[in-house]
Amino acid sequence: MNIIPGKTLKSFRKELWFNVPTRRAFINITPEVEKCLRESSIKEGFVLVNAMHITASVFINDDESGLHHDYDVWLEKLAPHAPAAQYRHNVGEDNADAHMKRQIMGREAVVAVTKGKLDFGSWEQIFYGEFDGRRKKRVLVKIIGE
Amino acid sequence: MNIIPGKTLKSFRKELWFNVPTRRAFINITPEVEKCLRESSIKEGFVLVNAMHITASVFINDDESGLHHDYDVWLEKLAPHAPAAQYRHNVGEDNADAHMKRQIMGREAVVAVTKGKLDFGSWEQIFYGEFDGRRKKRVLVKIIGE
Amino acid sequence: MNIIPGKTLKSFRKELWFNVPTRRAFINITPEVEKCLRESSIKEGFVLVNAMHITASVFINDDESGLHHDYDVWLEKLAPHAPAAQYRHNVGEDNADAHMKRQIMGREAVVAVTKGKLDFGSWEQIFYGEFDGRRKKRVLVKIIGE
Repeated sequence: MNIIPGKTLKSFRKELWFNVPTRRAFINITPEVEKCLRESSIKEGFVLVNAMHITASVFINDDESGLHHDYDVWLEKLAPHAPAAQYRHNVGEDNADAHMKRQIMGREAVVAVTKGKLDFGSWEQIFYGEFDGRRKKRVLVKIIGE
Repeated sequence: MNIIPGKTLKSFRKELWFNVPTRRAFINITPEVEKCLRESSIKEGFVLVNAMHITASVFINDDESGLHHDYDVWLEKLAPHAPAAQYRHNVGEDNADAHMKRQIMGREAVVAVTKGKLDFGSWEQIFYGEFDGRRKKRVLVKIIGE
Repeated sequence: MNIIPGKTLKSFRKELWFNVPTRRAFINITPEVEKCLRESSIKEGFVLVNAMHITASVFINDDESGLHHDYDVWLEKLAPHAPAAQYRHNVGEDNADAHMKRQIMGREAVVAVTKGKLDFGSWEQIFYGEFDGRRKKRVLVKIIGE
């Protein structure tokens, strides 16, 4: 049961699951979030979309493959993966850089809902940013409003 | 009609428009957001303020010109504008760096509304951060509450 | 009175106070936020947790001391404290770098409330990030829902 029809507020909750085959990727999840919004039948309110993992991001930017390549190169410059031993966190794992990349790109997006739609500018799209993939991970979509 | 008086929740929506004559600028939009809050007559809830463009930010920090200069220098160091050709996104445009600067400074701020006021610490002010100006762009103010 | 039982929406507000003896520190505030949520008796909604100061962060990541050390080293590399004179903001103060570190780590976290709990993935924990301590500072917890 995703929709909880409260006395004063309607709320909706759904998890989106991913299993990215590579270490890093950017995936446009706007259609999935729009689907959640339609299912919720909420017309006015807020959508929260957040990574439930601490080595992944949810962010809003452009759906342009050149830019995604640039982001990947840039994040690797600001928070390099190798050498893994430069990070104290990397004892038995090698994902310290992913925890940093996620801070730059952010954990969550909050989006206004107006007349039943994501209230977006022309180029806004919601992305799942994976920085330590090759396993199942998830994103939470929570909508409150009426 | 900005205010939608729902059965269970009041909501308010307004766009703020900008046409910054330079490529980059920081503009204090706190008075405009406070004006929206007064118009909404919402006393308890949340305000979402977000850039509707993906080369601009909304963030909360200090209204101090020295700091804004420092931010500008720092962002240019972390994500340099030139040479434009270093970015794959820059095919027919030159704003890849603006997409990066925006990620560091953030897309949105969510602010608590308490007793009809922005619930702020002493020095918190809301800024529009422009990283690719010289054209009309906008910010969304969405308030939900009662 | 922290809880405001509105006609259409319940809201809760509380400040958490800190006086970090060092310049920088990361403090896990998840138990305090959970306590606020229990006090609010809100079952479905959103929690906003934000620094009320502009040289501090609230962010969500891992409670792992090696990672916190790595964050500290990394933030110091991206936004060095010294030399203080490199920043125009540092006239009579020396905390320009703290304003930058806070932008990377973020001002706020918005967390979903589901069935009366913080709707978290396995490793998500909420931190107060202090970048200019040795004085009293505070965090706002605001919850709306029902």
